[in-house]
Amino acid sequence: MQSDQHQQTRILFTDLSALLARIFERHGTSKEVAAILADNCASAQRDGSDSHGIFRIPGYVSTLASGWVDGKAVPEVTDAAPGFISADAKNGFAQPALAAAKDLLAKKARANGIAMLAIHNSHHFAALWPDVEPFAREGLVALAFVNSMACVVPYGGKHALFGTNPIAFAAPREGHDPLVFDLATSAIANGDVQIAAREGKQLPPGYGVDRDGQPTCDPKAILDGGALLTFGGYKGSALSMMVELLAAALTGGNFSFDFDWKSHPGAQTPWTGQLLIVIDPSKGAGHNFAQRTEVLVRQMQAAGQERQPGDRRYHQRAQSERDGIAISKQELERLQDLAGYS
Amino acid sequence: MQSDQHQQTRILFTDLSALLARIFERHGTSKEVAAILADNCASAQRDGSDSHGIFRIPGYVSTLASGWVDGKAVPEVTDAAPGFISADAKNGFAQPALAAAKDLLAKKARANGIAMLAIHNSHHFAALWPDVEPFAREGLVALAFVNSMACVVPYGGKHALFGTNPIAFAAPREGHDPLVFDLATSAIANGDVQIAAREGKQLPPGYGVDRDGQPTCDPKAILDGGALLTFGGYKGSALSMMVELLAAALTGGNFSFDFDWKSHPGAQTPWTGQLLIVIDPSKGAGHNFAQRTEVLVRQMQAAGQERQPGDRRYHQRAQSERDGIAISKQELERLQDLAGYS
Repeated sequence: MQSDQHQQTRILFTDLSALLARIFERHGTSKEVAAILADNCASAQRDGSDSHGIFRIPGYVSTLASGWVDGKAVPEVTDAAPGFISADAKNGFAQPALAAAKDLLAKKARANGIAMLAIHNSHHFAALWPDVEPFAREGLVALAFVNSMACVVPYGGKHALFGTNPIAFAAPREGHDPLVFDLATSAIANGDVQIAAREGKQLPPGYGVDRDGQPTCDPKAILDGGALLTFGGYKGSALSMMVELLAAALTGGNFSFDFDWKSHPGAQTPWTGQLLIVIDPSKGAGHNFAQRTEVLVRQMQAAGQERQPGDRRYHQRAQSERDGIAISKQELERLQDLAGYS
Repeated sequence: MQSDQHQQTRILFTDLSALLARIFERHGTSKEVAAILADNCASAQRDGSDSHGIFRIPGYVSTLASGWVDGKAVPEVTDAAPGFISADAKNGFAQPALAAAKDLLAKKARANGIAMLAIHNSHHFAALWPDVEPFAREGLVALAFVNSMACVVPYGGKHALFGTNPIAFAAPREGHDPLVFDLATSAIANGDVQIAAREGKQLPPGYGVDRDGQPTCDPKAILDGGALLTFGGYKGSALSMMVELLAAALTGGNFSFDFDWKSHPGAQTPWTGQLLIVIDPSKGAGHNFAQRTEVLVRQMQAAGQERQPGDRRYHQRAQSERDGIAISKQELERLQDLAGYS
């Protein structure tokens, strides 16, 4: 049954990134924004984060076409206090704002012990782990929070209010890649619901409700006016609420229910905010932090936890770097079309 | 069946706090430490946090008698960096270290936008919400993490490694008490397992395993060499791991599996660390934070979430302040015995 179109091919990271950058720029971003988003999206594809890789490209293109987001926005970074950077993404994407502020953020964390970057007026349509991993590679500890669009029901509630609201964490680990997790506070990520719907698969129970607030396993019913549930019942709901407060209220960004994109058909990127907290562990009694992380990981392995957070991504990354990034011929042709190469 | 002994009586907060302070001091703490722990414990009892109220007193007494904790320790507070306070609790309780550093922590948060307090060499045997709520009453946002003792199995693992590792969060809310949650990353708090065991009740499925790593609903089997599970599967496990890193590795404190109290029979207080992060929202574009919190809460109510995090405690607090704190005559007599009043 497998046609030639579904055959896999391989592409080098630099080639995929260049192809994606051309797509972004051709559909309305500046050269600078294109390079940042392309690197981010190619990284997700390289690491096997399928729901945040090239799967997202049509959404980016459709959003840019709708005029909902400014692909040429130049973020404005304000040094608000010794440990507090405020960034206005100017209705552009969050990643260029982070790129503009990240060196200052790391510098402030090293000078003060802890510092934060509050981004508002921003769109985040990607995985969150790429935002924190680089800090851990510099020996820093990083936490990130981003809210999205109303698609998750608060615990005990009847309609969607929260976004999928992920929390990402990265910590250096001596002699190894950093320990990194990126977890949606929803029971499932929105991208994975979209993939299940596209592939015609059912979801396990407990992930979502339909438009009447009734439990459903049908991803299409969830996407068609239904909503997701939080993970872990009331605890996940409390954490999702915290993400709304940290990523939106604290930054001056929109809550997940604040914006209305009805006048921009095709818009898919949530217009919200993002908070990053970065800590320098070298200052206090925990100065041997990376060694302690390694001690903890070894104990987790000894307790029988075979796979650590981030392991699957690093494994896929190593394979992609060795063999090239796996992509179906059909997907590659679609990207080439979007890049204007056909 | 109800004997006179089980009849409820009422006690004023100040009277309960004075009674508890006398118990602490009589069993080996300094006057200063006694006052701090008594206020903390009486607050939990007042707010209906049964598993962290006077239920904990025998554990405190037994721990003090064992020589495991220094009830007279004077914490050493170090101004490590503009946003970073390091506190050595000197094998004493964590709350006196927090009390010694909290004004400086709030001051640093206001000056820098964000600041943190890393406490190590400390024992925390109480609820975590009392550590964060006061900051929110000053208009600040606070996060706290504390690890405890190995009683939780990492996801996919076979034996206990993590503590119940709670995360607490407090945010100011305009015109109302702060929004506060305090959630164990275990599926259930250890104190609640102890209460269920004492009362001979069974637990719901998914909360713990027995000494052979097999699922069990028997709280006694969990306490007798068994272990708890994390809430929310691998996501709760990732958060519990993060708490180990933030509360122990970053502070220089013990991991939950690091200490061995076998040579101190009767010891019950985990000898670990605690991290507090405090943020001043007034610095950036989110300066209207308390109003935004109120907007979010109203939307949560409109979505059908009737009870907000902290509501039950505030309701019980108001009732206790009006009528006095409910306590059984038997419990009160036990406390009076411990205070040497009989």
